Amino acid sequence: MPSANLFVEQNKPRLLSELKDFLRIPSISTLPEHAGDVQRAAEFVAQSLRAAGLENIEIIPTERHPLIYADWLHAPGKPTVLCYGHYDVQPPDPLDLWTTPPFDPQERDGNLYARGSADDKGQMYMHIKAVEALRAVNGTLPLNLKFLIEGEEEIGGGSIAKYVEQTAKTNPAKLKADIALVSDTALYADGVPTLCSGLRGLMYTEIEAHGPARDLHSGLYGGAAPNAVFGLIELCSKMKAENGRILIPAFYQDVQAPAEAEKKSWASLPFNEAEYLKKEVGSAALTGEPGYSVFERTWSRPTLEVHGIAGGFTGAGAKTVIPAVAVAKVSMRLVPNQDPEKIFAQYKKFVAESTPKGITTQVRLLSYTPGVVVNPDHPGIRVAAQALRDIFGRETVFMRSGGSIPIVTDFKKHLGLSTILMGFGLPDDCLHSPNEKYKISNYYAGIMTIAHFFEQYGATTPA
Amino acid sequence: MPSANLFVEQNKPRLLSELKDFLRIPSISTLPEHAGDVQRAAEFVAQSLRAAGLENIEIIPTERHPLIYADWLHAPGKPTVLCYGHYDVQPPDPLDLWTTPPFDPQERDGNLYARGSADDKGQMYMHIKAVEALRAVNGTLPLNLKFLIEGEEEIGGGSIAKYVEQTAKTNPAKLKADIALVSDTALYADGVPTLCSGLRGLMYTEIEAHGPARDLHSGLYGGAAPNAVFGLIELCSKMKAENGRILIPAFYQDVQAPAEAEKKSWASLPFNEAEYLKKEVGSAALTGEPGYSVFERTWSRPTLEVHGIAGGFTGAGAKTVIPAVAVAKVSMRLVPNQDPEKIFAQYKKFVAESTPKGITTQVRLLSYTPGVVVNPDHPGIRVAAQALRDIFGRETVFMRSGGSIPIVTDFKKHLGLSTILMGFGLPDDCLHSPNEKYKISNYYAGIMTIAHFFEQYGATTPA
Repeated sequence: MPSANLFVEQNKPRLLSELKDFLRIPSISTLPEHAGDVQRAAEFVAQSLRAAGLENIEIIPTERHPLIYADWLHAPGKPTVLCYGHYDVQPPDPLDLWTTPPFDPQERDGNLYARGSADDKGQMYMHIKAVEALRAVNGTLPLNLKFLIEGEEEIGGGSIAKYVEQTAKTNPAKLKADIALVSDTALYADGVPTLCSGLRGLMYTEIEAHGPARDLHSGLYGGAAPNAVFGLIELCSKMKAENGRILIPAFYQDVQAPAEAEKKSWASLPFNEAEYLKKEVGSAALTGEPGYSVFERTWSRPTLEVHGIAGGFTGAGAKTVIPAVAVAKVSMRLVPNQDPEKIFAQYKKFVAESTPKGITTQVRLLSYTPGVVVNPDHPGIRVAAQALRDIFGRETVFMRSGGSIPIVTDFKKHLGLSTILMGFGLPDDCLHSPNEKYKISNYYAGIMTIAHFFEQYGATTPA
Repeated sequence: MPSANLFVEQNKPRLLSELKDFLRIPSISTLPEHAGDVQRAAEFVAQSLRAAGLENIEIIPTERHPLIYADWLHAPGKPTVLCYGHYDVQPPDPLDLWTTPPFDPQERDGNLYARGSADDKGQMYMHIKAVEALRAVNGTLPLNLKFLIEGEEEIGGGSIAKYVEQTAKTNPAKLKADIALVSDTALYADGVPTLCSGLRGLMYTEIEAHGPARDLHSGLYGGAAPNAVFGLIELCSKMKAENGRILIPAFYQDVQAPAEAEKKSWASLPFNEAEYLKKEVGSAALTGEPGYSVFERTWSRPTLEVHGIAGGFTGAGAKTVIPAVAVAKVSMRLVPNQDPEKIFAQYKKFVAESTPKGITTQVRLLSYTPGVVVNPDHPGIRVAAQALRDIFGRETVFMRSGGSIPIVTDFKKHLGLSTILMGFGLPDDCLHSPNEKYKISNYYAGIMTIAHFFEQYGATTPA
């Protein structure tokens, strides 16, 4: 039996009660009135790292919320893992939809309900508790560890991105490691050990369209004056065919298809499309490019969405204006090998050329991050898959996520690190929503798996 | 010289000062806190009618703001004119854009600045003052007059529409007349005597589009879940070709082209398209159906506009939702002979058939009014054109308006009345906007013209 398992079994009440203490701190990073709570959560994390035996603990001030660094480097010749997580949480509103208050953790049906229980306090805390378990059982650690934990993940992660980029230049030894470990994702389904092997990127833009100099009366000017809202509608409609295919020239040119082995593995995942449509999406039908499975469409194909559009009169009743201005938020999910800057240039050109007569448009790029894939042949990934299989008792599946985790790109770009995305959440954990929960047995299983991974990976020789 | 002219010349200060008293009452019909002011304005109108010599004055309560009725029926064998106007006004905001306060009338550069000066207090008041002038000069009136004045024009005119329909059924003699007179329009240009000979109708709808059951994460579901905003964009884009032609089947089927004489008259109106684009519209270019002049496109061709669209995330920054719901306000300007109910049925069918896969839509009809044309051979119209020519000293032009005045349709439908649209505003009067004004010399010219029209029309024999 992996050496930390018994320790976890014997210490369950305390392991849970300490997590509850952490969850009671309303560390909502976006709300200025909670800045003190965010600071308090940072100190809680630092204290927990210290108690687990980590050393060189720093609470690093940033422009907003502090970063926490810690390490344990007494295993010469052994690999080094960089553990990442975040201690900030999303706002809990609408409060009235919570069964119990978001910052008063409660157990129900084997779940722990609280804001941050799954995203990400409950998951990042497993890393710390795995260290504690191994030291308690063995008196030492089987490999070298570094921790880098942030308090701005829910507001864009600006400070950690800067810190990683700068540290890579000025003090490259500091964050040097063999692999990064992030637990901020979910199992494919309960009981199915899962590693995430790829993430889509994101390019987020805003288009502002102008028609007449001011809102005009549609009776007096209708038929001669261009309409900013309709112009923007026409423009956006040209971006995507009815079957979901994106019409921006050369958009698909660099798209890298998933490996055959990956596609084969996805095809073997249990999936009921009718149930997915009914229970998860809830629309009249699914949409998307013909010839691709739902997994391919949401994991390995790029997409274009209009997230919101506003312009003209939208109050109750009728007002007959020809609107002067309209704005749309348009983003593209990008897949590995698509270069966001190249795509943006193509997109901007397309918008300029497709803007209807009488309308002028401006395009603003709000943010971008490229897609990433993890190399499944990396020894750390192979060991992680093995550790999951040992604890869960069945074969680990590789899935991708259609979302983006920018820090994974930063680790790759600035530190040259691959990342193990080994999360223990479940698809119905209600992240960012009322009644967020984390399954308690997965919290324990996560601690055991991570400790086991540390031991197994410590038994390998770094490249 | 027409008999009222000298009276107007000699009484200018008093005629203007009484109008200012009227304009000082902030009779904003849409704001509940001004209900008392609206009532006060109704009483001011009733009192003015009484002072001018009108009889049988009634302040008729309605569900919202009172109607005022008055008559003078002592010219047996002579025609009867039904005078219409409204005493309510639009809200004045944004207040900080007014040079002087909206309810403190001020003279500048020959104009009277105040909310309601042109729309419509200053214009309806001319009717009353024309009566006063004729009675002062002649001791009597040359024809029979009825007044029906409302306080809800700026909020849809619901009460007068009901009143006219009901009175036509229960007491048809009450509103019986030979023609209606409305002064709520503008001259084609300053110094150019103008009659409006046609109005477009309006059909106003709302489309609500639903995609997924709730907003979804575009990373996780993008590529499989339909997007309500994009679905609505696709739907609306199918309604109109890039050249402005409406693509709803059979939409143009019943469109009645303007008479050749009308088109010829429009072609003779002074019009500088470059200046219109620059000074009035202010967009990069004009738009609209090829092969039609600006007058045809805005007066005698139907149009389709999206007045506003809302859905998804439209705040500052980036949020990656696939929106569940989106709403658009869509209206069509209709021209004479287009049946709004038939058009609505075609439109509704088109929306149902053109709704993209995965999206469901609902269409709501908010209001409709058909287009109208005035018969230029009606004796009242001929006399009105003549009266304008006499006072202004040049030939009267016939133009149309692209806007809608629903009461004109109601008079036609329920009372069988044609309407003389004889307004004395100017195109730059800033109706519904800050710094609304009315040219003072046109106020006097309007009183003279209306009095002269009453005399000339009184000299004809009713049909």
